[in-house]
Amino acid sequence: MRMNTLRVALLGCGVVGSEVARQMTERSDDLSARIGARLELAGVAVRRTGRDRAASGISPELFTTDAAGLVERDDVDLIVEVIGGIEPARGLILSALERGKSVVTANKALMADDGYALHTAADKHGVDLYYEAAVAGAIPLLRPLRESLAGDHITRVLGIVNGTTNYILDQMDSYGSGFAEALEEAQSLGYAEADPTADIEGFDAAAKAAILASIAFHSPVTMSDVHRQGITDVTSADVASAKAMGAVVKLLAICELAPDGDAVGVRVHPAMIPRTHPLAGVRGAYNAVFVEAEAAGQVMFYGPGAGGAPTASAILGDLVTVARNRIGGVTGPGGSWYADRRVHPMGQTSTRYHISLDVDDRPGVLAAVATVFAEHGVSIETVRQRTERPDDAELVVVTHKASDEALTATVAGLGRLDTVRDVMSVMRVEGG
Amino acid sequence: MRMNTLRVALLGCGVVGSEVARQMTERSDDLSARIGARLELAGVAVRRTGRDRAASGISPELFTTDAAGLVERDDVDLIVEVIGGIEPARGLILSALERGKSVVTANKALMADDGYALHTAADKHGVDLYYEAAVAGAIPLLRPLRESLAGDHITRVLGIVNGTTNYILDQMDSYGSGFAEALEEAQSLGYAEADPTADIEGFDAAAKAAILASIAFHSPVTMSDVHRQGITDVTSADVASAKAMGAVVKLLAICELAPDGDAVGVRVHPAMIPRTHPLAGVRGAYNAVFVEAEAAGQVMFYGPGAGGAPTASAILGDLVTVARNRIGGVTGPGGSWYADRRVHPMGQTSTRYHISLDVDDRPGVLAAVATVFAEHGVSIETVRQRTERPDDAELVVVTHKASDEALTATVAGLGRLDTVRDVMSVMRVEGG
Repeated sequence: MRMNTLRVALLGCGVVGSEVARQMTERSDDLSARIGARLELAGVAVRRTGRDRAASGISPELFTTDAAGLVERDDVDLIVEVIGGIEPARGLILSALERGKSVVTANKALMADDGYALHTAADKHGVDLYYEAAVAGAIPLLRPLRESLAGDHITRVLGIVNGTTNYILDQMDSYGSGFAEALEEAQSLGYAEADPTADIEGFDAAAKAAILASIAFHSPVTMSDVHRQGITDVTSADVASAKAMGAVVKLLAICELAPDGDAVGVRVHPAMIPRTHPLAGVRGAYNAVFVEAEAAGQVMFYGPGAGGAPTASAILGDLVTVARNRIGGVTGPGGSWYADRRVHPMGQTSTRYHISLDVDDRPGVLAAVATVFAEHGVSIETVRQRTERPDDAELVVVTHKASDEALTATVAGLGRLDTVRDVMSVMRVEGG
Repeated sequence: MRMNTLRVALLGCGVVGSEVARQMTERSDDLSARIGARLELAGVAVRRTGRDRAASGISPELFTTDAAGLVERDDVDLIVEVIGGIEPARGLILSALERGKSVVTANKALMADDGYALHTAADKHGVDLYYEAAVAGAIPLLRPLRESLAGDHITRVLGIVNGTTNYILDQMDSYGSGFAEALEEAQSLGYAEADPTADIEGFDAAAKAAILASIAFHSPVTMSDVHRQGITDVTSADVASAKAMGAVVKLLAICELAPDGDAVGVRVHPAMIPRTHPLAGVRGAYNAVFVEAEAAGQVMFYGPGAGGAPTASAILGDLVTVARNRIGGVTGPGGSWYADRRVHPMGQTSTRYHISLDVDDRPGVLAAVATVFAEHGVSIETVRQRTERPDDAELVVVTHKASDEALTATVAGLGRLDTVRDVMSVMRVEGG
């Protein structure tokens, strides 16, 4: 039987949810033409009814606080989940999948933690689970990775996937602001939350990195597999030092195959990248993801990484697909974990490093420092020495590729030298 | 019945075809895991057998000159067409579709001319027709437009879709080369063909623009609907003049909704864009496409636009999808023409213009020139006057938005002024 109407339950009605409802209504004819059936809002689950929701344009009788009941209703075909967080979202999605309802979600934390289990449930019950909006807002990314590049061998995904931290680092780079000052400005403009922890400590980017790695490398990767370091220790001196070497500091999410191809390394940390790299030009709160594949070469996806309307665009794109699939009685490509690669230990991950040291300005210091690097097998690419006050110098060392392990040992060794007053900063250098 | 092997016929075995065959063989296990069935090469149609094709690694007995017979064979499930051009490709693809075989093609000329008819045939026979490789090489673009942004309202697609002309213009911008010199260099490096007409006259970009417009606006648009102007008239003076105003000259493919939303304007021409625009930074033979959508905002796709391996990557991505669909007994989204918008007449298309005039250096010239603009209702944004020799001056006028019609009449009027010796160049200004 060909359905003429598909009924959608919306779980959550914040900025994104109300935008989804608005676009579903306003662009109803276009969506119908593309799907071959009308989408109808069956209900909207909210935490509290009674709030004035007139501005949303949603009929008041559609609101309910009984999300579980809404998901179970027989007249609901598709679910859009924009509550966020692990529970109750997880339970509601599982309940929907078990009842044969396809789900579109923007929930990165949940997909990063439970992607494998949720995909397995969707596959078992023959329904779709789509989540383009979970990573990089409106930028088409998960579907291109999953489908367009499905015939290729992806070796690396390198991205700026958190707009808040990119805004902060961009301010530090463009105006010489300190971290605290730039964060405060981001908060006053609404780019950062009152509690900015999830962004500035890299949790948000790490969840997205786990999702990207799972898809790109056909292996289950979760949050806890991601090496994570935020931007709170990035100083204006780091940013200036990057500038001096023609680089810029960005918070990067990096997913890459280990040299032997059997393991996946996933990490989120600030890094210096050359200003000539396409990611270096990503300004403000924008996102961009750079994908390296064997045959395709380097491709990049760029756009707004957050916001109600862009996120709603990604959700509606998914909704059109799952609705079409539902009508056709089929499902799109589900979870793909056949490669089942292990996680590459961070200690064995190799990158270049930028290290700045506060040292005594006297003969023999450089020799002592160089000896420590040599003892740990870390090869030096360049050394720059700057004397600002008598007896007091700054040494900036950029290394060739070295393992995290070797570098950590080197830094510990440097800290034990009498002539080194302080290891002021250690930052990875990428995209060379 | 679940198929365990899908047999693929390859039509054409040039640079792209042999790369497709190589990747199908080398990455066979990965492809099988992603598809759920093995892909097997059933035959390769070439114009002449007997050439030494040992390097391709394809078993000699697979080659045939009987492309039509290969397509008709009952043991062939899927067709990859990389012959190019209209015939015999068109007839072969139609024959395949009529026999229930899904087709993957890289043929931009054919899809630009006959997309509507071919999609209709594919839909009628319940098979897939995919052609990601036809536009912008390995960059995932058609599928994101067709699927990821399916829930959004696209208003504009602005792209650099021809690598050869971008290489030439980039050389002119970076090294001050003239057009002829830059073309020669592109030819010596293999970026341009011995007969470069298709690239430098904009035919290649126009075909891609027609395909992009059809998909973005759900309306049949063909080559003949595209206003086309190549780069052969772009001079080093134009490039220098662009530089002076903080812009760069690019060959752009522009597909946009007319202001009333009922018509689609599609054009390919050189234009000046600000250096701050993300497309300005696209160097060498790279491609990039900028999409503006109501909810998503501005997203960009960037990567290598041509080459054997990147094009093969796009073909294999499509092949994985059509193979999966074939196994599932389904098809992906077919042609979508529901909006059926008419083509916006070029004369009514409005852009800003950069006009440079060789004029007598005497009082009253600017007044006379300004009067001609005013008479045709074209508003001037800036005028820059430069005197290089006595009595001889250059006037550079940048207009506000004006229709092509009004601008053409203005230029004719300027040509009739005694004081204007020559209208040296007229170029559109985009991306403001």
